[in-house]
Amino acid sequence: MTAPTTLAALVAAIEEPDAGAAAEAQRRLDTKTKPRRSLGRLEDLACQIAGVRRTPAPLPGRKVIVVMGADHGVAEEGVSAYPREVTAQMLLNFARGGAAINVLARHAGAEVVVIDMGVAVPLPAPAPDIRVERIGAGTGNFARGPAMSRAEAVRALETGARIAAELAAGGATLIGLGDMGIGNTTASSAVVAALTGAPVEEVVGRGTGVDDAGLARKIDVIRRGLALNRPDPQDAVDVLAKVGGFEIAGLAGVALGAAAARVPVVVDGFICGTAALVAARIAPRCRGALIASHRSVEAGHRLVLQALGSKPLLDLDLRLGEGTGAALAMGLCDAALRVLAEMATFTAAGVSDSGA
Amino acid sequence: MTAPTTLAALVAAIEEPDAGAAAEAQRRLDTKTKPRRSLGRLEDLACQIAGVRRTPAPLPGRKVIVVMGADHGVAEEGVSAYPREVTAQMLLNFARGGAAINVLARHAGAEVVVIDMGVAVPLPAPAPDIRVERIGAGTGNFARGPAMSRAEAVRALETGARIAAELAAGGATLIGLGDMGIGNTTASSAVVAALTGAPVEEVVGRGTGVDDAGLARKIDVIRRGLALNRPDPQDAVDVLAKVGGFEIAGLAGVALGAAAARVPVVVDGFICGTAALVAARIAPRCRGALIASHRSVEAGHRLVLQALGSKPLLDLDLRLGEGTGAALAMGLCDAALRVLAEMATFTAAGVSDSGA
Repeated sequence: MTAPTTLAALVAAIEEPDAGAAAEAQRRLDTKTKPRRSLGRLEDLACQIAGVRRTPAPLPGRKVIVVMGADHGVAEEGVSAYPREVTAQMLLNFARGGAAINVLARHAGAEVVVIDMGVAVPLPAPAPDIRVERIGAGTGNFARGPAMSRAEAVRALETGARIAAELAAGGATLIGLGDMGIGNTTASSAVVAALTGAPVEEVVGRGTGVDDAGLARKIDVIRRGLALNRPDPQDAVDVLAKVGGFEIAGLAGVALGAAAARVPVVVDGFICGTAALVAARIAPRCRGALIASHRSVEAGHRLVLQALGSKPLLDLDLRLGEGTGAALAMGLCDAALRVLAEMATFTAAGVSDSGA
Repeated sequence: MTAPTTLAALVAAIEEPDAGAAAEAQRRLDTKTKPRRSLGRLEDLACQIAGVRRTPAPLPGRKVIVVMGADHGVAEEGVSAYPREVTAQMLLNFARGGAAINVLARHAGAEVVVIDMGVAVPLPAPAPDIRVERIGAGTGNFARGPAMSRAEAVRALETGARIAAELAAGGATLIGLGDMGIGNTTASSAVVAALTGAPVEEVVGRGTGVDDAGLARKIDVIRRGLALNRPDPQDAVDVLAKVGGFEIAGLAGVALGAAAARVPVVVDGFICGTAALVAARIAPRCRGALIASHRSVEAGHRLVLQALGSKPLLDLDLRLGEGTGAALAMGLCDAALRVLAEMATFTAAGVSDSGA
């Protein structure tokens, strides 16, 4: 299977999950020594992965979390509790293994791939472990004009898809999405408001911890940005370009590329959920490949999950991003696949089956 | 620290968690490269474990899931979808490593200790890996008399506590509770109704999959059992003896023994939650050591969690028992401790801190 290289080819390459493989996985689970369906959503998860990977007996395999970082012009409006430099500093922290995502990925047995999609300031130290795929030196401030051009949005999407295709070709069987970008809850809120039509004040939350005045500024900035740029809600690429971000676009591309390569995608919280929503608007058939890892405390995430029709696996009041929720959920994905692969059947174990 | 050997000594030995160690763990988490409290309940979990283990920097250690099996006289009333033989058959399945709990414990890196607390029929094959601590050949049918004597209930409690003390002495740093016993949702429902005063029809669920007629029978049997035996709601040991089960009493003892040994206890679903509630009624100070792993679909579990004041970590529609939810939650416990131990600080990573 050659990976598609343009957005149009990518969309065309995405199939619905294989319902037959999913149903056969459930039939196998029903022969195991437990009451039928008594492992609930863990069984659903095994069947979903079977469908996406198009095999009734998928094994746990190579897990990779793609963490994309980029800066946001809108940060200059004072919408974050952190200075902009933190984006690049945190990418270095990821590369050195000291961040929450590194710890939780190690715990899950997942690799972390760190991508610079366009931080504003140069990285403060050389970092061979950061892959450079910069679309620009941070987006434009969408309160004053478009965040990026349509061509840049498409390039970011195709970059993400290419990375996912490479990872799939290299044996990845589960891809997680993670984000880093000071100001990116503001950009995500704008994207979600534009795509869903929800009132801005319902979408916006406190991000990494902005105060009341900051929250009011966020709402005002997003309203102004939407009024100024008038993104077309029917055209997700237009929305991405006008009020999105390089990492949001790149992560949407990873979701599309993974779905095209038949690799399930574990979506983190609000930012990655926004990217997944963009992907689902571009290619609705990719939805079957998406696994919602957790419910973020960020207000707009509820709307994202609703729009995607996703029920998250975890609800732990996380609001960190980086892919941390995705890493935790990967442990559940492997657990589900191991149940499918390793449990004894009623017959093999000599246990009486009620058929219940 | 010598382990207490009688129930009274055990209760006296249980302390509240060390609030200072928990607070110091939170202070350390607040120096890590993430917005304060952005890992939500994972941070709470790390602090809770720090408090119980009385150290600000507990490391992941040896995890053990104690799965206790026993039979229930009340099963002869037709309250389960499965024949009674299944209890013993499943203990053998646990010993051979083929059950869901084995798979999920392996995934979590936990050992499984299988205890025969009193199955009714002899084990169908020799099983050196099953520890025999039989209180009797199944309980009496509580619809016709008490399930067991008070002395038997105390013996089961002390047995569980002794096992927990041995595991703690052997280095266990996290103990999970798991159950197996055909009929044990009926016994647990009776215990919960007696202890909480909730109406029987609100406590009873379908267990492993009983039909409408079976559900009506369960409700009727429990009502008759409570009317006949009149357990004293102020005396949890009396409730255990009259309508409980050997494994429920044993697991309550494990919770008490673990709390006395300063080892956190990961509680599975409805049956183990009932055991934890019994433990908390016997020694309220043990509550701080209890970690609720998941919210079972079994109706009465909601009441148990409410009575314990516990919010479960997972909500995955599980209803299997065996400790399966506890095994999944152990992965989150280790993740929380690794965040505390392994993440870089703002200072070490050279990341700007907003203080947010």
